[in-house]
Amino acid sequence: MCPPKVLSGMAEAATSRRNFLKLGFGAAAAGAAAVALPNTRKTLAQAVGGISFNNVQDLTHVLGRNTPLFPGSPPFEITTYVTVEENGFYGSILNYWEHVGTHMDAPAHFAVGGAFVDQLNPANLIVPIAVIDISGRALLNPDTTVNLDDVLAYEAQYGQIPENAAVFMDSGWAERWGEPEAFVNLDEGSTQHYPGFSQEATDFLIFQRNIAGIGVDTLSLDPGNSTTFDVHVSFLGSGRWGIENLANLNQIPPTGAVAFVGAPKVAAGSGGPSRVMAIW
Amino acid sequence: MCPPKVLSGMAEAATSRRNFLKLGFGAAAAGAAAVALPNTRKTLAQAVGGISFNNVQDLTHVLGRNTPLFPGSPPFEITTYVTVEENGFYGSILNYWEHVGTHMDAPAHFAVGGAFVDQLNPANLIVPIAVIDISGRALLNPDTTVNLDDVLAYEAQYGQIPENAAVFMDSGWAERWGEPEAFVNLDEGSTQHYPGFSQEATDFLIFQRNIAGIGVDTLSLDPGNSTTFDVHVSFLGSGRWGIENLANLNQIPPTGAVAFVGAPKVAAGSGGPSRVMAIW
Repeated sequence: MCPPKVLSGMAEAATSRRNFLKLGFGAAAAGAAAVALPNTRKTLAQAVGGISFNNVQDLTHVLGRNTPLFPGSPPFEITTYVTVEENGFYGSILNYWEHVGTHMDAPAHFAVGGAFVDQLNPANLIVPIAVIDISGRALLNPDTTVNLDDVLAYEAQYGQIPENAAVFMDSGWAERWGEPEAFVNLDEGSTQHYPGFSQEATDFLIFQRNIAGIGVDTLSLDPGNSTTFDVHVSFLGSGRWGIENLANLNQIPPTGAVAFVGAPKVAAGSGGPSRVMAIW
Repeated sequence: MCPPKVLSGMAEAATSRRNFLKLGFGAAAAGAAAVALPNTRKTLAQAVGGISFNNVQDLTHVLGRNTPLFPGSPPFEITTYVTVEENGFYGSILNYWEHVGTHMDAPAHFAVGGAFVDQLNPANLIVPIAVIDISGRALLNPDTTVNLDDVLAYEAQYGQIPENAAVFMDSGWAERWGEPEAFVNLDEGSTQHYPGFSQEATDFLIFQRNIAGIGVDTLSLDPGNSTTFDVHVSFLGSGRWGIENLANLNQIPPTGAVAFVGAPKVAAGSGGPSRVMAIW
């Protein structure tokens, strides 16, 4: 719910109840404890049916005023609108460019007639993950890319990337998230320097592997020094999605995890901040 | 990536490449086909490890200018900022109150000192679902609530609700989403009428079941005619989350599905539009 500034009449009642809450729900707990429970013995594992996993890893950066921005982008703004003290509840107004933080690029971001973010097939948003680690090379050369050789080397080690997978680049760049200047990594000529995918690799992943999407831990699917945005144009143009600014890719296994890609479902959206998590 | 209005120089290159794309990626496909593939025979099922499921259901409404609003809320706004034709890529600026569309209420929404949306434990966002169907009763009485009796009747039929579960109310209200007036359902005195949870039920789910969160297919965790917002205050005050305006709850099984609750990870956020999906 939430009717900003129209419910302040409830603030007093809410405050008195909160004081009660501070006492530890004592009375409510006592009341609930008296309820007779059905004598069932189902376990959590049974309750979740045939789906089991042992690990959850968030792949999403916190989005806020300090989030690194692609040069030229409007800033992310959050403005407190109501507070518990004044209005009985707390909430804010957000104002932002869709392509900020850990976020989705939908096909429509670069392709006329491509799917908007609300038109993506949900089955393409819950997919197996292949993590390709180029962090060692990125330490030596920030302009490096995920090349076809990297994809083939990955497959030689871990097996063929399955259809409808997500292929994520781990370049080690997420470690720079807290230092926006190091994350954007501009040179004196205002050219950005960070890794991305090569079109050679993404063409292979489109035509030979039919994957669902790609992801990077940098600001762009293309390397930072790209002027032609070949991967954006060709990969999004093929009807597939991309995710930028992923976090914690070194905390999940190279193969065997499943991604939940929580893209926003905004009408005619070109993408937007997304909650991405992995289970395995 | 995405530098609004600073990349228009690439529009021409992008356009010429798009014309190429319209030809069906012919040359790129031919090139990729020539690559020697590793001789692996892994299947999709193997690649996703021990995690298997047969069904995916989106539980999220499309968010846009026609989204039903809690009375008094600011409207959802999306403004086109750049277009492929003019700038080489497409994207928009969003402006909205956090509590719109299918969205999360974090504890901080009603509880001073409660967790902000970026502080929720990811393990509490991928959880088993119990769907409690009160749609028959809601047809007769829009002010009905999920009561303790409903929870106990559910458990008698489907087994005990597991710890860390999500309990979702299906009141049939999602069918009204396309008709905002029917969804908000104001009477002549401007009181809303739609179902929600009773605190009796949610206290039981807190203290006897230790669930992770609740969800409703209406505008509010509390019934529409509530003036004291008891469930918001007590349930969010207990450190748990709520989701409002869920979709398609009649398309998933009452037990056995797992929810992915894709809450935004906004610093100091009180909640916000969330992508919610179920697998089973």
